[in-house]
Amino acid sequence: MATEERTYNFSAGPATIPVQVLEQVQQELLNFNGCGASIMEISHRSAQFIEVLDSARAGIKQLLGIDDSHEVLFLQGGSRLQFSMIPMNLLRDENDRAAYIVSGTWSSKAFEEAKGTGNIDLAWSGKDSNFNTLPASTDLALADDPAFLYYASNETIHGVQFQEDFHIASTPLVCDASSDFLSRPINMEQHGIVYACAQKNAGPSGVTIIVIRKDLLTRSQASLPGYLNYKTHVEQNSMFNTPPTFGIYVVDLICKWLINEMGGLAQIADYNNDKATLLYDIIDQCDDMFIGHAEKQFRSKMNVTFNLPSEELTSQFLEQAAKQGLTSLKGHRSVGGVRASIYNAMPHEGVVALRDFMKSFYTQNS
Amino acid sequence: MATEERTYNFSAGPATIPVQVLEQVQQELLNFNGCGASIMEISHRSAQFIEVLDSARAGIKQLLGIDDSHEVLFLQGGSRLQFSMIPMNLLRDENDRAAYIVSGTWSSKAFEEAKGTGNIDLAWSGKDSNFNTLPASTDLALADDPAFLYYASNETIHGVQFQEDFHIASTPLVCDASSDFLSRPINMEQHGIVYACAQKNAGPSGVTIIVIRKDLLTRSQASLPGYLNYKTHVEQNSMFNTPPTFGIYVVDLICKWLINEMGGLAQIADYNNDKATLLYDIIDQCDDMFIGHAEKQFRSKMNVTFNLPSEELTSQFLEQAAKQGLTSLKGHRSVGGVRASIYNAMPHEGVVALRDFMKSFYTQNS
Repeated sequence: MATEERTYNFSAGPATIPVQVLEQVQQELLNFNGCGASIMEISHRSAQFIEVLDSARAGIKQLLGIDDSHEVLFLQGGSRLQFSMIPMNLLRDENDRAAYIVSGTWSSKAFEEAKGTGNIDLAWSGKDSNFNTLPASTDLALADDPAFLYYASNETIHGVQFQEDFHIASTPLVCDASSDFLSRPINMEQHGIVYACAQKNAGPSGVTIIVIRKDLLTRSQASLPGYLNYKTHVEQNSMFNTPPTFGIYVVDLICKWLINEMGGLAQIADYNNDKATLLYDIIDQCDDMFIGHAEKQFRSKMNVTFNLPSEELTSQFLEQAAKQGLTSLKGHRSVGGVRASIYNAMPHEGVVALRDFMKSFYTQNS
Repeated sequence: MATEERTYNFSAGPATIPVQVLEQVQQELLNFNGCGASIMEISHRSAQFIEVLDSARAGIKQLLGIDDSHEVLFLQGGSRLQFSMIPMNLLRDENDRAAYIVSGTWSSKAFEEAKGTGNIDLAWSGKDSNFNTLPASTDLALADDPAFLYYASNETIHGVQFQEDFHIASTPLVCDASSDFLSRPINMEQHGIVYACAQKNAGPSGVTIIVIRKDLLTRSQASLPGYLNYKTHVEQNSMFNTPPTFGIYVVDLICKWLINEMGGLAQIADYNNDKATLLYDIIDQCDDMFIGHAEKQFRSKMNVTFNLPSEELTSQFLEQAAKQGLTSLKGHRSVGGVRASIYNAMPHEGVVALRDFMKSFYTQNS
């Protein structure tokens, strides 16, 4: 249950972190691994930090089931910088074209930013239905041989999530997995790039994890600004400049927690499905009170979005939930309503507590 | 003294952090300010985090003595990204020119990167003397009306530091203050931009602090990639995307420590001068053993660099120092020797301990 010390925190990101991880960070904050200094205070080129970096990289590779075919980078600048870096690095020349699926706020921003860099085609848009649905591969408008096909596997704000991997022959997929990275297995063979800001499932904000298929690195031109060139970062082992060391350390601890405590991605996917089902079931049972946003077949396992019949009821819902230690449930300012973000680190009992609260709120108000 | 728990850590960056700050981070790591979650877990748009962000910004403004004439940004990507952003934002058109002072490794890298963006002139270089000296304003080769004059106030690797602010009429100065930011007062009126990676004097790695004079923001063109546009970040209050929240929180605590415990920049400058003097005095007294790199009048108060007569003595020095809890004294791999980084958070007694060790090493080996 929520305690006096800790609430159940449904924040969409930065988001809840496994309490065991936080306890370890706390315990060794002044003296990391017996080195006499905090992990924040030691050189990124020290043996102690290199071990952390290598371990984080190995953890991600193990979880994703990839080998030397892909590189794992830890960069800064979030999705916003990736929105520029991706077309800058992956378009093969100035006449080349890439295709974007626009399925919510984040892929929409990616699409707009990419247009400043090169020739970008819209492969599909969900705007007309206010982003409550998603396309199948066969719905896409694709030119011949696009440089890549971009999509967001999960839209945090609208709460829609692709349920299956795409397959587009010979076109590398580029996936913004910021809000469902490491929450379920992913077919890496079809992906040229899978990237994620850490602050949903993988760590604190300020670390961007990029997994890139090695053959794509030949596309990065030396004329790119240094920090914006994937090849530079690969060649420098993510140490082109001082990396966000503390954040990478937390990512490493979270990978270890995923592997050792939670059993890997297939297991955490089951755990996440069970949690999401608890909430979607009550939404369906009480659909005169809780109006789910996403079409059923595209419901996100990470961000459960719904509206109540009035602003007044929404406010009451949020206020009463907070009193029970169920916090950060307010929907994104651009869509309103309620959003329960239930990433890997949200415990099952936290979701049960929310489900029970929803039941009782329904009984009292309908 | 160094304890079993904590060494005196002379790392050049990431570097030592005030122990009081680390203790506060540790104490509230699982429950920040009574909100029931870690500072790492709460939304960057929550009232709690906005208070931290506002406080960090206000702390920097108070320390630097600036008002609404300047904006303070908290970005990601380190100096390397600034090396591109500065010319991209500040060159007024494609025919415009900027001038760079190359006084060590970091300004040299800045110069090389900037050349990829626009017309960049070399105003002065210290390469011929292996970067042990610095120019006066009158030594500079400047074209008419350069867009800006770039310099690094302190070169971390070579240990040279400008002792006085420049004044170049009507040309905005752009200062990489990464390794002496907040270590002494700075004349902000003459500066268009002062920027710093946090990981020397101001926080953990992963936060880049940019202080920019407002009138320069009109130079940023809308065609720039979103993340690379200062104006965008100013308009979005450093929240164009999720900022590195944990790092900004540590920056805020360090600013509070500087203001409340250390008395501000004039006082910390005296403290830093006293520390540096302890080491330079022993270098001068034992100059057959400790061969200072920088010319005396340009010696850095932050990074004290010297060589010993042989590789063997250098190794012995580093090894014996480490046994006494004096760590991370090895010079940068590009120059060798010894480097003692004595930023704000290195306590006076740590420097005394190093000075005493140097004395005793000299007695035993000469």
